[in-house]
Amino acid sequence: MAIRVTVWNEFQHEKENERVRSVYPDGIHEAIKHGIAQLGDFDVRTATLDEPEHGLTPDVLATTDTLIWWGHKAHDRVSDAVVERVCSEVLSGMGLIALHSAHFSRVFRRLMGTNCSLKWREAGERERLWNIYPSHPVMEGIDEHFELQQAEMYGEPFDIPKPDDLLLISWFKGGEVFRSGCAWNRGNGRVLYFRPGHETYPIYYDPNVLRIIANGCRWSRRRLTRPTDACPNPGPLESFL
Amino acid sequence: MAIRVTVWNEFQHEKENERVRSVYPDGIHEAIKHGIAQLGDFDVRTATLDEPEHGLTPDVLATTDTLIWWGHKAHDRVSDAVVERVCSEVLSGMGLIALHSAHFSRVFRRLMGTNCSLKWREAGERERLWNIYPSHPVMEGIDEHFELQQAEMYGEPFDIPKPDDLLLISWFKGGEVFRSGCAWNRGNGRVLYFRPGHETYPIYYDPNVLRIIANGCRWSRRRLTRPTDACPNPGPLESFL
Amino acid sequence: MAIRVTVWNEFQHEKENERVRSVYPDGIHEAIKHGIAQLGDFDVRTATLDEPEHGLTPDVLATTDTLIWWGHKAHDRVSDAVVERVCSEVLSGMGLIALHSAHFSRVFRRLMGTNCSLKWREAGERERLWNIYPSHPVMEGIDEHFELQQAEMYGEPFDIPKPDDLLLISWFKGGEVFRSGCAWNRGNGRVLYFRPGHETYPIYYDPNVLRIIANGCRWSRRRLTRPTDACPNPGPLESFL
Amino acid sequence: MAIRVTVWNEFQHEKENERVRSVYPDGIHEAIKHGIAQLGDFDVRTATLDEPEHGLTPDVLATTDTLIWWGHKAHDRVSDAVVERVCSEVLSGMGLIALHSAHFSRVFRRLMGTNCSLKWREAGERERLWNIYPSHPVMEGIDEHFELQQAEMYGEPFDIPKPDDLLLISWFKGGEVFRSGCAWNRGNGRVLYFRPGHETYPIYYDPNVLRIIANGCRWSRRRLTRPTDACPNPGPLESFL
Repeated sequence: MAIRVTVWNEFQHEKENERVRSVYPDGIHEAIKHGIAQLGDFDVRTATLDEPEHGLTPDVLATTDTLIWWGHKAHDRVSDAVVERVCSEVLSGMGLIALHSAHFSRVFRRLMGTNCSLKWREAGERERLWNIYPSHPVMEGIDEHFELQQAEMYGEPFDIPKPDDLLLISWFKGGEVFRSGCAWNRGNGRVLYFRPGHETYPIYYDPNVLRIIANGCRWSRRRLTRPTDACPNPGPLESFL
Repeated sequence: MAIRVTVWNEFQHEKENERVRSVYPDGIHEAIKHGIAQLGDFDVRTATLDEPEHGLTPDVLATTDTLIWWGHKAHDRVSDAVVERVCSEVLSGMGLIALHSAHFSRVFRRLMGTNCSLKWREAGERERLWNIYPSHPVMEGIDEHFELQQAEMYGEPFDIPKPDDLLLISWFKGGEVFRSGCAWNRGNGRVLYFRPGHETYPIYYDPNVLRIIANGCRWSRRRLTRPTDACPNPGPLESFL
Repeated sequence: MAIRVTVWNEFQHEKENERVRSVYPDGIHEAIKHGIAQLGDFDVRTATLDEPEHGLTPDVLATTDTLIWWGHKAHDRVSDAVVERVCSEVLSGMGLIALHSAHFSRVFRRLMGTNCSLKWREAGERERLWNIYPSHPVMEGIDEHFELQQAEMYGEPFDIPKPDDLLLISWFKGGEVFRSGCAWNRGNGRVLYFRPGHETYPIYYDPNVLRIIANGCRWSRRRLTRPTDACPNPGPLESFL
Repeated sequence: MAIRVTVWNEFQHEKENERVRSVYPDGIHEAIKHGIAQLGDFDVRTATLDEPEHGLTPDVLATTDTLIWWGHKAHDRVSDAVVERVCSEVLSGMGLIALHSAHFSRVFRRLMGTNCSLKWREAGERERLWNIYPSHPVMEGIDEHFELQQAEMYGEPFDIPKPDDLLLISWFKGGEVFRSGCAWNRGNGRVLYFRPGHETYPIYYDPNVLRIIANGCRWSRRRLTRPTDACPNPGPLESFL
C-alpha cells in the first residue's frame, strides 16, 4: 500500500529571491516530491505556509503517513493551531522528517523540548557525511560516506535530546562536526532530523540525500493511530482481598 | 557547598481540604523541605502558586540548583511566563524533579515534548517499587525494593520519551506496573520524574521516598549555567585553500 | 521474499522428562516452528544441540535471517566454536531472538557483555505483560496487556545493558516485575530478548506469545551482511596541504 | 576520600622502541599517573603486563575504584583469568577507562559484546575534538572544542553498542570523524572509552586529555560492590490466595 507523504514547505524564499528560484523553480517541496517519486511506493502531496491553515487541515494530517517539513525564515508565522495539530498527530502516530533549518521550526522544537540551537556558517564548503549506523533502515543503500561539495555548515553543540538512533555525523572542511541524522520516537510517532538542505545549493537533487529522505518516509510512516492525551481510570485487574 | 533547592508546590489542596491539611498541615512543600533537610547539605527554600510570579522570579531560579515541582489540580494556572522561565533555566543548567501528578504539569510536558499521559486509580492499594538501577546515584542507599502500603496507582503506558535512565518500576496490587523513576538530560539540565506522592497518603514522610528525593537533588544539581538559545555564526577554523 | 528462520532448541528436557514431553511432544522447537508458520511469510528450519555442530554450520547461519534460541540446562555444552560463529553472524547482520532461560545462554551473555542474572521462582503464578511501546513493530497487534495464567517468575534486577528499546514489563502475582521484552542493536544485527516460555507450562501455544515471536522475526531479520571484524587503514580523503 | 586509581599499561613499546622511550621514558602509565596527580584527590598505582598476573591480582582490583587501561600490540597476551577477573570486577562496581587502542583490548571487547573495529591512519594529522555534552561530569572544564596537532586518525564506523552518553566527536584533517568519548553502564560499573593517545605523539601530556582522564576517574569511580552473577530464588512477597 502506498505511503502517503505530505511535503510541507514555507515557500517564501522561492517567491522572493531570484537565485533561489533558479535552483528550485517550483519550490523546494516540488523538488522533493519529484525526487522521491521513483524511490518507493509513495503517494505525495504538498502543502505550503500561504495556503489556508498552511495546507495542513485535520483531514490532510489524518491521511498523512509521513510529513516532511522545510522552514527557514518564517517559523514564527506558523500558527499555534497548526503547531498543536501537527505535534498531536505525530504523538498519535504520524511520522515527521525535519529537514535542515527545520531544526528551529516550532513543530520540531516542541517535540524535542529543547532549544535545538547549533552553529552555522554559509561558505559553500565541502561536507562529508559518515554513515554511523549502516544497518539502520534509513541508511539502506548508503555507503560508508558521501559528500556534498557545497554546503552550509551546521556545527556542534546541537541542543537536542539524546537521539534514540544516531545515523550520520558530518565532517566540514572548515573544521566542525555535526550529528546530521538523528531519530527519535515521540508518542506513537517517529521523528527524523536530517541536516542536508539549503535554498541555493542544489542539495535536494542529490541522489544520496533523496534516498535518505525516501528511506525516512518508509521508516517513519504511520503504523497506527492512537491518541495519547487521555488518562484512563480503570478498576483493578486483580482482587484486593 | 550547599545545594540550593527550591520546593515548589501549587498549595491548593491543603488550603481547601481538611483531610489534606491533616496530613500536610503546612503544605506538601514544607513536608519535603523538612524531610530532606537532614539528608544532605541542602539550602532549601519554598515557593507556591499564589505568590507573585508563583514565587519563581528570575532571581530565585538563577540561584536554584534543583527545583522540585509538585502540582495537581491547578496546572493551567501556572503562567506562560513562568513556564517559559523554568524551562529555559533547566536548559541552561538547573535541575528539575517532577513529583507524582507533576507528570501533567506544563513544565514537565514541555520539556518532554509528549503528552505524559498514564492510567490512574485511587484505591489505596499497595505499591512495591523495584530498584532497576542499583548503582545509579539517585538509588544510593535504596534496597532492591521498598513498599508503600497505600498509594494511588499509576499505570502504563506512560507517554514519555525513552528515559535516559530507568531507575524504578512499580508493582501495584491491582495488577499494573509503572516506570516510577525516570531520568533525562535536557539541554544542560537534568530532569528526574519520581512517581510516589499524594495529597492524602502520607508518602512524603516515607524514609525511602525522602532519600530518593534528596539523592535526586544531588544528582540533578546545577553544574554550570550555559544558555542554549543562541546560534553562533563563526568563521572557519581551518583554511579553505 | 520469505524470512528464513532457524529455531534452535537444546532439546534435552523433552527427551528426559515425561511431563515436558507431554506438553511439547516434538520439542519446543517444533511447537514454535508450527506456531509461527501461519503468522508470516517464514521459511522455518530447526536445529538442536545433539546434531553435529549443534545444527548450526556456517552454511546454516549464512542462510538464516533470524535465529531463535531456546536453552535451559545445557548452556555449557554449546561449543566455543558455535558460540563464536553465532555471535559473529549476529554482528554481521543476522537477527537473534533469545527466549526465556536463554538469558543465561553463552550466546546472549556474550553479546550483552554482562552476567544477565535475574531472580526466579517456579510457582505457576499469573503473569501480566504490559505493552510499554505500542508503536514498536514487535508489538504490532498486541493489546495494552495480556496474561499468562501459569508462569515461572523472573524478577528484577535483570543484569543487562540498557535496552535500546523496552517493549514489555511483566507484573507477577507474587509481587515482582520484570523487563520481559528488550531489544538491542549489536553490530549490524538486532537482538530481542523475550521472557515468556517454560518447558512444562504450554506458553509456546499462546497466541500473543507466538505473535510477538513472529513480529520479532520480521523486526530482527537480516537486512545486510557486513562483517565488522576488520580495521581498514585508508589514505586521507582530504589533502593535508 | 581519595579515589583509588590503577593505571594499567601493557608496557611493551617503551621497552622495545627508542622513539617511544624518548616520549614516555618511564612508560605511558607513569606519564598518566603523574599527569592526573594534581587534578584531584587520587591515590594512583600502576600495573603492567609483565608483572605476575599482569599486576592485577584480586586484591589490587578489589581496592581499585577506577582502572585505566592502555594496550596496543599485546592484547592477546592478557590471560583469560585476568580478562575474566577485570570484567567481573567492572560488573560488580569498579570503573574502567579504556584509552585509544584499548578499543581492541580483550577486556573492552568483552564488556561491549561487539568487535569494536574502526578505521585508522598514522599520518600525524590534526584532530579537533568537539564537546557534544558540555554538562556531563566527564566534560567539566572542557571548552567547546580542543585540538591535538598530531594524532593518529580513528574513523567511523566504530563497531560499538550505542553509547549511553556520547561526549566527544573528533574531526580529522584527512576527512574522517569519530566518536572519541563514549560512556556506558555495565552491571554496576561505568565504562568510558576515550580515544586520544599514542605511543609516539606526546598526547598524555596534553592538559585537556589529562583533565578528561581525571574527570573520568571521578565519574566512573566505584560507588558500591555488588556482584551480579547469582540468580536468587526467593519466595513470593504477596499471598497467592
